[in-house]
Amino acid sequence: MTTVTSRSLVQYLISTENHHSSFENEVRKIELPMLAEFGSNATIQCPDFADFGTTLTADGADLTRAEFPLVSASSRHQILKAVPSSTAPTGQRIAVLFSGGPASGGHNVVVGIRRVLGENNVLLGVKAGPKGLLEGDLFEIPADISNILNTGGFDFLGSDRTKIKSDAQLAQVLATVQRFQLNGIIVVGGDDSNTNAAFLAEFLAPHRCAVIGVPKTIDGDLQVSDLVPISFGFDTATKIYSEIVGNILQDTPSSRKYWHFIKLMGRSASHVALEVALQTHPAVTLISEEIAEKKWSLGDVVNYIADVVIQRASAGINHGVVLIPEGVIEFIPEIKTLIRALNESVATQSGSNAVDALSPELKALFQSFPDQIQSKLLLDRDSHGNLQVSQIPSEELFIELTRRRVAALNPEVKFSPLNHFFGYEGRCGAPTRFDAIYTYNLGLVAGALAIRGRSGYMASVTDIFNGGQGIAVPLTGLITTERRSGSTQMVIKKALVTTDSPAFRFFDSRRGEWAKSDLFSSPGPRQLWGELGNQVPITVALNQGAESLGFKIG
Amino acid sequence: MTTVTSRSLVQYLISTENHHSSFENEVRKIELPMLAEFGSNATIQCPDFADFGTTLTADGADLTRAEFPLVSASSRHQILKAVPSSTAPTGQRIAVLFSGGPASGGHNVVVGIRRVLGENNVLLGVKAGPKGLLEGDLFEIPADISNILNTGGFDFLGSDRTKIKSDAQLAQVLATVQRFQLNGIIVVGGDDSNTNAAFLAEFLAPHRCAVIGVPKTIDGDLQVSDLVPISFGFDTATKIYSEIVGNILQDTPSSRKYWHFIKLMGRSASHVALEVALQTHPAVTLISEEIAEKKWSLGDVVNYIADVVIQRASAGINHGVVLIPEGVIEFIPEIKTLIRALNESVATQSGSNAVDALSPELKALFQSFPDQIQSKLLLDRDSHGNLQVSQIPSEELFIELTRRRVAALNPEVKFSPLNHFFGYEGRCGAPTRFDAIYTYNLGLVAGALAIRGRSGYMASVTDIFNGGQGIAVPLTGLITTERRSGSTQMVIKKALVTTDSPAFRFFDSRRGEWAKSDLFSSPGPRQLWGELGNQVPITVALNQGAESLGFKIG
Repeated sequence: MTTVTSRSLVQYLISTENHHSSFENEVRKIELPMLAEFGSNATIQCPDFADFGTTLTADGADLTRAEFPLVSASSRHQILKAVPSSTAPTGQRIAVLFSGGPASGGHNVVVGIRRVLGENNVLLGVKAGPKGLLEGDLFEIPADISNILNTGGFDFLGSDRTKIKSDAQLAQVLATVQRFQLNGIIVVGGDDSNTNAAFLAEFLAPHRCAVIGVPKTIDGDLQVSDLVPISFGFDTATKIYSEIVGNILQDTPSSRKYWHFIKLMGRSASHVALEVALQTHPAVTLISEEIAEKKWSLGDVVNYIADVVIQRASAGINHGVVLIPEGVIEFIPEIKTLIRALNESVATQSGSNAVDALSPELKALFQSFPDQIQSKLLLDRDSHGNLQVSQIPSEELFIELTRRRVAALNPEVKFSPLNHFFGYEGRCGAPTRFDAIYTYNLGLVAGALAIRGRSGYMASVTDIFNGGQGIAVPLTGLITTERRSGSTQMVIKKALVTTDSPAFRFFDSRRGEWAKSDLFSSPGPRQLWGELGNQVPITVALNQGAESLGFKIG
Repeated sequence: MTTVTSRSLVQYLISTENHHSSFENEVRKIELPMLAEFGSNATIQCPDFADFGTTLTADGADLTRAEFPLVSASSRHQILKAVPSSTAPTGQRIAVLFSGGPASGGHNVVVGIRRVLGENNVLLGVKAGPKGLLEGDLFEIPADISNILNTGGFDFLGSDRTKIKSDAQLAQVLATVQRFQLNGIIVVGGDDSNTNAAFLAEFLAPHRCAVIGVPKTIDGDLQVSDLVPISFGFDTATKIYSEIVGNILQDTPSSRKYWHFIKLMGRSASHVALEVALQTHPAVTLISEEIAEKKWSLGDVVNYIADVVIQRASAGINHGVVLIPEGVIEFIPEIKTLIRALNESVATQSGSNAVDALSPELKALFQSFPDQIQSKLLLDRDSHGNLQVSQIPSEELFIELTRRRVAALNPEVKFSPLNHFFGYEGRCGAPTRFDAIYTYNLGLVAGALAIRGRSGYMASVTDIFNGGQGIAVPLTGLITTERRSGSTQMVIKKALVTTDSPAFRFFDSRRGEWAKSDLFSSPGPRQLWGELGNQVPITVALNQGAESLGFKIG
């Protein structure tokens, strides 16, 4: 045996550092199909926009028109579609920024924008999110950025969660717009960031600077019927989680002894948990929205889990997987009431004072939780006034309560639980084929809207099973009112799972079988080459009424 | 928008249940190359075995010859190699079992055994590990088991951790051997299970039942120079962890605020952490064996991490990843001394009595830990008398101690830590190309040894960069003495990371650069088709003196 280290191997290994693994090198070479209205990658055309023939209004449209008079008047809440054009604007200066948590495909959005802008327009990158817009931290993005094509992460620009709200902040944005002579700003973000984009569009309308949103979030809670079939990043994140959950499921009948309680990122909505359930078929999946709708108590949820544990044990199966959506405990009515009361009392007082301000019933509920959970419930809120639900170890809470319940019902049952939380693993992986293609085209649409000066829209791609159609969805058509942090605010409503959706109904029709015996599957690691990679999320295919999981964009 | 659910989609989705995802269906179709001495998949030949020309002796060979007189005499501690043969044994009845934690590729071992046995020999599967051998829970494996080819997990048979040791247990094994008329038993397991296999081989030698081991463990601590280049499952597990760690690394400069402390499964040895470090290039990787060799105190380790955190912060980088091998705290001399003392005192007394039995210095060290860590250190041991190191949240310990140290050195530094533990995710994924091919051929070699009646060997494949050669390594050549649970035992020594190995030296030459700035890479999800999948672990390639990561078996 030689232990001489090969020089060629060492040189190869050093060459892989700094984003140059052989995988990363190869994915950068994958060219992506584009929507017909943009021509071809060899000669990209900038389309124009025409009426799609659909008007979009959310609840409270009158309030919206009052709050957003300029962009409401210009969009008339109508959807636009991209149509081929032989002329292209020139001399436009556009900025792009990432807002909020990263999602796979963000880099392709930037590549799409950069390419549709072409040689005759300038694209500036805003560093580190909305904060960079306030601070004027912008740089010119070169013409060729194919080195970030198909790579995961938001690191090309960075991101943050600054909410642009105050008059002082708006003045800072205006200073940046004027200093960099911006004709447009593209905000790549989730529901809150797109709400911000709408306010910014209204504010900047007199200054001839367009603001465009791009629907991003792994949570999947930014989707609008077939107009915005899904936010980007959801597909990659859920396929990463599905592989991991599939591997753990595969481990259960091999080891024959563990119950894995797996919490999945996704904030309030249960789209991620539902998608992973449909991909892998675990014994139990909690869907927060169903729990809220059926007004289950915490005890009801625990009973449901414990019953499955006991049912399987009676069939000799002492293992299983329980999927828990990140936000579930907010949706259990009694806990929801508690959190709402705490949200308001924590806003004005801290620690034990906030607890003393609760009603006697809520205080008793609060004090029935383990200490660890109690302290998490009192933690500071995020900049949007929301509870940091990811900080609450609900998987540990359910393990402890299930353990007690199983022991009470049948002390003979073996119950060896393990807990996991998957979140950060799924936000920055190399995008799936769907996310790669979808985001590249979202970038093309967003860039075209920006240089055409079409302000106050979210870029989208509809008709994703039949070639795709670039469209623009008026942000003001999505805005409604919601109570947050003790006051009524105008926001884009989060799209939650509904129990009458085809995806939920299908899940509901199968979960009883999945609970009874092992019917799980492993969807495997996502494949970037070959036919296996060409699948949309199962929830999207079901909810869009598709015939299969295969998509076709371009 | 239609919400009519497509019947064809629903039928497709139901068809994917129970291990029939489109991925699982496709991987089963991948046929695997085989070693030349086995002919071809169309007509598999059973090779014979001849001297390889190498004798293997570990420390304490005289003791080994005394403890294993029969198998030592028959093997003379010589390595055998598989050589083509035109004749094949018939009428042999062989049993196969999985022992210990699952590892990817186990199913291919069984397929390899089944195929080399052919139509004229019988293969029995032992259900649920060594316990199934005691209880006589065996079933005949059908000729065609291609449905498990290339699938992850051990669920085809199940596994457990029963250690066959007592005379009563050995009598039970003999009863099973006689009842099922077994001519051979193949034990697929790690170092402890192969030690058991050696004892079993000696015990069953007078009963004409051969016992063969197959080197399995994701921990990578069962490797013998180029004779056993690596245990199977290590490649798949480390590639799964590397993708996840790569995704998290990609998240760090996107979010710009988190330090992720990631503990990786792998028991005592740091092979897994070293491999993942070489794949991904994080800021800090702890290598337990180095810490022990340099006699670092817990404070030294924490200072090392804190220095990197502060150094990066001074360059404006408030993020990073710290990889922590599962067993690290056992290797810190002061903690090692404490654990050894606790191992002995916990064996005879429990709880606070075990603590009171410690020396004043060790008691003080014990009491300086957070409560949570204290209680974990007192937990029961596994059936081999080892501390369940995976139960100790060392990642939380290092976070807390690093937080204190950074705050003491420079209170200005932002330090937002998150913790993860990856283990179960990596044991049962679909095997990589390397693990799939390696295990298929390990199965072929093990099956041939069993029906040739060659007892007391571990099946292996050497020369993996040049076509491969099936060999048999005498188990008694690997056995040495070790102190465990307060007594001296004969065991196969765990292969630990050595600081003079090419893999460690290369890591050592680069880690300073990785600490200073972001030079990380994402190796991406493992690809099962195409050239990207044809890579061995980096540590294996370096330690074997290979020119590249590409392997060639068959």
